[in-house]
Amino acid sequence: MKHPPQIEELVERLSKLPGLGRKSATRLALHLLRSPEDEVSALAAALMAVKERIRFCSVCHDYTDQDPCPRCSDPKRDRGSICVVESPADLMVIEASGIYHGLYHVLGGVLNPLAGIGPDELNIQDLVARVDALAKTDSQVRELILATGSSPEAEATCSYIVTQLGGRDLRVTRLARGLPSGMDLEFVDGQTLRQALEFRGEAR
Amino acid sequence: MKHPPQIEELVERLSKLPGLGRKSATRLALHLLRSPEDEVSALAAALMAVKERIRFCSVCHDYTDQDPCPRCSDPKRDRGSICVVESPADLMVIEASGIYHGLYHVLGGVLNPLAGIGPDELNIQDLVARVDALAKTDSQVRELILATGSSPEAEATCSYIVTQLGGRDLRVTRLARGLPSGMDLEFVDGQTLRQALEFRGEAR
Repeated sequence: MKHPPQIEELVERLSKLPGLGRKSATRLALHLLRSPEDEVSALAAALMAVKERIRFCSVCHDYTDQDPCPRCSDPKRDRGSICVVESPADLMVIEASGIYHGLYHVLGGVLNPLAGIGPDELNIQDLVARVDALAKTDSQVRELILATGSSPEAEATCSYIVTQLGGRDLRVTRLARGLPSGMDLEFVDGQTLRQALEFRGEAR
Repeated sequence: MKHPPQIEELVERLSKLPGLGRKSATRLALHLLRSPEDEVSALAAALMAVKERIRFCSVCHDYTDQDPCPRCSDPKRDRGSICVVESPADLMVIEASGIYHGLYHVLGGVLNPLAGIGPDELNIQDLVARVDALAKTDSQVRELILATGSSPEAEATCSYIVTQLGGRDLRVTRLARGLPSGMDLEFVDGQTLRQALEFRGEAR
């Protein structure tokens, strides 16, 4: 015999979330049934709030509840540097590291012709226009850091952006390829090793 | 710099759920931001529905949206057998196995004096009253199956129930203790082995 339809529905909804199978969705549903009603209401309200209030920033295309986003409006950020990332999730990772204090530009993905994702599906022309607009102001962009992943599609996207920005007076860099921290050499694949050699620097 | 407060709030709420750390809560929040609005609304509605509509069955104390629950009202279930479980989650596991077709009684936990859980905090007197009430009708209980876990607290709870039911005309059984399926003998602990010997049956 089935459980009450409300529990079935909640388990069904939860098990559609990434990383949750039916078993963990059931465990979560039972936990929520045991939780105080105000906690569950607060979770439901938080879900609705992100969908109702969160939009994309018209400048950097990150998620925001005000446009332009607080980061784009922050006078303390280094306005001479734009870090180009694939997604808001990647932006979060870089922000969490606390290493970077410039601006961002979210592409919204990488070029993938087989999946029907061409330049028009990404925020690339918008990036070029942003660089050109800033060139006419006091806050010219000195450096564009291409902080995409290292998949072939991401590499192709970087090449495309470099082509689009050709002839402009700014430095375009990308993240180093090399050994991940804490990795034993015996477990490194050939491509990573090749790139680690290519990007090698002075030993200190 | 922080993310928009709505995203922070959702991550905060999600990371309070069991089995979800801050990292997986963030991943879930970003997934929900990318999901269609109607899917997220449906999840929020499902959360509210379980809290608004789900109550405990006054007979078996399982979760239900109608009282008595469909299982307690089902004439096709074997009314001569009551399976006593600790929680609705345990009931779900037994139901999912498809092996048992009788009635249930949810205790709501096990005796744990150190945590302040005595007989009055559990549905034990209610179980005795249920058995006694049925003894006066056509649908007398033949067997009570104590399907609790095998922790010391659960064992003590079973003993207490046996005492409470003393002198009544019904069989009280408990789940066999023994080797879990697929277990190599070398990995079995002493207590399990002792009980597997005690519960031994004829080889077939």
